[in-house]
Amino acid sequence: MGTLPRPFAARRGDSCVTHGGRAGAVKESTRLTSPLGLRYNKPDVPDLNYPLELLWDLFAQDSPSGDEGQAADWLAARLARDVPDAHLTRLGDSLIAARGDRPRVAVLAHLDTTGWTLGYDKRLLRIGGPDGKPGDGIRPVGRPDTGNTLARRKDGAWRVRGKTDAPPGSCWVYSARPAQNGGEIDAPYLDNRAGVWAAVQVLLHCPSVAVAFTSGEETRGVGALACARLLSETHGITQALICDLTWHTRWVKCGRGPAVSLRDSSVPRQSYLVRVLAQAETSGLPFQREIESDGGSDGAALDRSGFGIDWAFVGAPENDPHTARERVDIGDLQGMAALLVRLVDGLSEGQE
Amino acid sequence: MGTLPRPFAARRGDSCVTHGGRAGAVKESTRLTSPLGLRYNKPDVPDLNYPLELLWDLFAQDSPSGDEGQAADWLAARLARDVPDAHLTRLGDSLIAARGDRPRVAVLAHLDTTGWTLGYDKRLLRIGGPDGKPGDGIRPVGRPDTGNTLARRKDGAWRVRGKTDAPPGSCWVYSARPAQNGGEIDAPYLDNRAGVWAAVQVLLHCPSVAVAFTSGEETRGVGALACARLLSETHGITQALICDLTWHTRWVKCGRGPAVSLRDSSVPRQSYLVRVLAQAETSGLPFQREIESDGGSDGAALDRSGFGIDWAFVGAPENDPHTARERVDIGDLQGMAALLVRLVDGLSEGQE
Amino acid sequence: MGTLPRPFAARRGDSCVTHGGRAGAVKESTRLTSPLGLRYNKPDVPDLNYPLELLWDLFAQDSPSGDEGQAADWLAARLARDVPDAHLTRLGDSLIAARGDRPRVAVLAHLDTTGWTLGYDKRLLRIGGPDGKPGDGIRPVGRPDTGNTLARRKDGAWRVRGKTDAPPGSCWVYSARPAQNGGEIDAPYLDNRAGVWAAVQVLLHCPSVAVAFTSGEETRGVGALACARLLSETHGITQALICDLTWHTRWVKCGRGPAVSLRDSSVPRQSYLVRVLAQAETSGLPFQREIESDGGSDGAALDRSGFGIDWAFVGAPENDPHTARERVDIGDLQGMAALLVRLVDGLSEGQE
Repeated sequence: MGTLPRPFAARRGDSCVTHGGRAGAVKESTRLTSPLGLRYNKPDVPDLNYPLELLWDLFAQDSPSGDEGQAADWLAARLARDVPDAHLTRLGDSLIAARGDRPRVAVLAHLDTTGWTLGYDKRLLRIGGPDGKPGDGIRPVGRPDTGNTLARRKDGAWRVRGKTDAPPGSCWVYSARPAQNGGEIDAPYLDNRAGVWAAVQVLLHCPSVAVAFTSGEETRGVGALACARLLSETHGITQALICDLTWHTRWVKCGRGPAVSLRDSSVPRQSYLVRVLAQAETSGLPFQREIESDGGSDGAALDRSGFGIDWAFVGAPENDPHTARERVDIGDLQGMAALLVRLVDGLSEGQE
Repeated sequence: MGTLPRPFAARRGDSCVTHGGRAGAVKESTRLTSPLGLRYNKPDVPDLNYPLELLWDLFAQDSPSGDEGQAADWLAARLARDVPDAHLTRLGDSLIAARGDRPRVAVLAHLDTTGWTLGYDKRLLRIGGPDGKPGDGIRPVGRPDTGNTLARRKDGAWRVRGKTDAPPGSCWVYSARPAQNGGEIDAPYLDNRAGVWAAVQVLLHCPSVAVAFTSGEETRGVGALACARLLSETHGITQALICDLTWHTRWVKCGRGPAVSLRDSSVPRQSYLVRVLAQAETSGLPFQREIESDGGSDGAALDRSGFGIDWAFVGAPENDPHTARERVDIGDLQGMAALLVRLVDGLSEGQE
Repeated sequence: MGTLPRPFAARRGDSCVTHGGRAGAVKESTRLTSPLGLRYNKPDVPDLNYPLELLWDLFAQDSPSGDEGQAADWLAARLARDVPDAHLTRLGDSLIAARGDRPRVAVLAHLDTTGWTLGYDKRLLRIGGPDGKPGDGIRPVGRPDTGNTLARRKDGAWRVRGKTDAPPGSCWVYSARPAQNGGEIDAPYLDNRAGVWAAVQVLLHCPSVAVAFTSGEETRGVGALACARLLSETHGITQALICDLTWHTRWVKCGRGPAVSLRDSSVPRQSYLVRVLAQAETSGLPFQREIESDGGSDGAALDRSGFGIDWAFVGAPENDPHTARERVDIGDLQGMAALLVRLVDGLSEGQE
């Protein structure tokens, strides 16, 4: 792992329509207390240069869907320390951190990842949609890597290769270690460690916002459903931004800034999307317009909640999602956090 | 477009068990101020012969799922003018119009239609389930027809044929114009313009009713989910009627009156269905009993809402649903509105 | 039908790790007023040996999904008589029976079964997922068996064989009669008559519990969704146990005690599951750990409700689910009821 860049240090001048090669590695920069020029009117808000180390800390918290409890505990403790004015509410294994008297925008970042449940006869049952390959290293949640790998049974089912004393029913995750290669991070579960990292930036930078760290997104969105209730009933939230990673494709490429999704398998409410896109343009920050027919996010769960919360998806693209080697551009992550901060502030203005 | 018949002018004596040919065109009739003999005890209720022109006005409001905002604005303005005692509530792009101190029955008519999102390289991504054919005329929402048509790519995906300056992400709809041929209307998006038309009749005729014009029915029912909350929490509604079009089949045919559905992919609560069917029999109006294993409606969304709202589906059958040329019998539409009025009144009686 | 054993009479000493053959038939035992050694501090709680005859009474109540009204009426009357201190609430065709000032645990047992709707031309449309075979006896709900059977049409659709005057739209069920063969019950709809039986035992034995008898589990969980709202909003419930039957497989076998499911198509919250499993171990009662990737229960509906109610599935395995001849071990049923009683008491302790 090399030297970690400071957040928000670069990419401001990038054009969202550039179609050139990948951006170069982000350079070490001087420490900025207010890199986005935001208003910090709360003296107890800590220094904002929350470094990428948080991302490495997050990688150390295993949290396949259904088993996010320990990660939520860890994150709650970290936020209590670093964002002392945030009001924290735990909902199952989801966590809502709210700042300001009356936040007008919610940001949702899911805390869970894909994984496997160990079944009978060393079978592995999928949790969400992991896209592992035979030979990928795996280990039980909360345990060190002891050399187990993914393998296929003759009947096509996945199984564990190698000895293990983990009991049937235990949850398993990729054991690959995160690494930084130049301006790129290469790790399992960037989806959605990187989104959680970005959402913490938003919490630090925005004096008025409700950030929901949700559970169960990779399965059926149970966390976002529960959070929607609290966001609506307690905070009166009607505007949300989904802070999650998306796919590197022919059209949306790593290194060109975060994507704002115009649709996936869900079609968000157009009048809200138009406002979000207008704020994104106003920000001057680089972003890409994504149009997909597949895929989904906690936005779909907000729709299913019936609380009438509008949403738009904002996230950096990554290569090889749900594999042991997801790869994301650090500049895209920084741009994603910066864009979300601008959107939260812009969407809050003029809202009662 | 020929002379438009007055609503509710005919079909009273038809038998629901007739299995003969198509009913003849509905004849022009004298204007009736109270065609159904309903009680109008509110002096501010306007004249009831809301004509079929409303349907033509509705055809002019594009509203693919997710983009119903302008249509909801238009409808709210029209209802404020024509049903001044209705209390209007906007929920996202859905609209609830309630009359009376304590309405006991809700009618749900979805305001959205199928359509497409323009993707990359002129691809078209489906919104809901449009059943277009190559060569069908299409145009961007809110824009005039400039000759674009549906076409297929070699990989099977749909695309736009012809030049367009509409941006990727724009929503598209069929460009075919509605027409009246004798007693039949031939138009895209009769599903559910015709249901909205019928629901407006119900609102005009029933002194106590809550009508929800919902968004997102063709995708995932987000509007009905949000409306269910308000209908239950604000109005204490437990009884609903779904006002939507259904399919012309071997067993339920155009020209024989609206269908009351005994089931589709959902099975409604039988004890409620029995009451609805008994009221329908009591009305003396013609109707057909539909039994399907597929298909769905906002009724399924009411179930998913968890608010315990019983529902039954009432709607005229149409030919070629979700195509550029849906066709419905005008008498069936009139009968659908008339039956719904009777059901709302009958189901309200004896309910506290 | 032979002599019925008393409930809770046996299986206490069985080991959950035994992998031998099927358990022998449960023997007639002396009547026990407090077989589980539970505290009965309410003098008005009736004698606890609610016998298996209740199960035979339940078999007599037809209740395919959507048509549970009569069964819910019957059960409400029975509970009003036999558990007079239970507070009963009817929600649609679901029924909630709550005992104690502040129950901390809910038990959900679905009241509905699979079945068919009679369609056109004697077709049968499935309600839920019945797994009938040609020649299985069927009859309309609430009517005697007049010799109709399941048959296949040439196009593969199911149809009724034999004459019937039941109208299209009527609901049909298996006509096979329940029987006891030694220690086994052999009947259609053990799923979930047996779960309802067990849940009634729990209601009788636990001075503080909320039992939800839900509708619509075999279709889309509409009853559990509605019950979740009341359980959460009225009772503040956050802990639930799903009381339902599961599958006899290579790994979970009839005769070895009820299964506690570690997962099915849903992954329950692990921190809650760990508590449930610890309580099950503490009980000393035999149970099997089930790990499946398919299947679902009202637990999934609780997740969809967004009320943040944790759940775990507890149920006896059965052979040939959804057929006309489901078979369950009576000892497993007794063990299921006993385990649920212990879990309710254990999970209630220390909860405010």
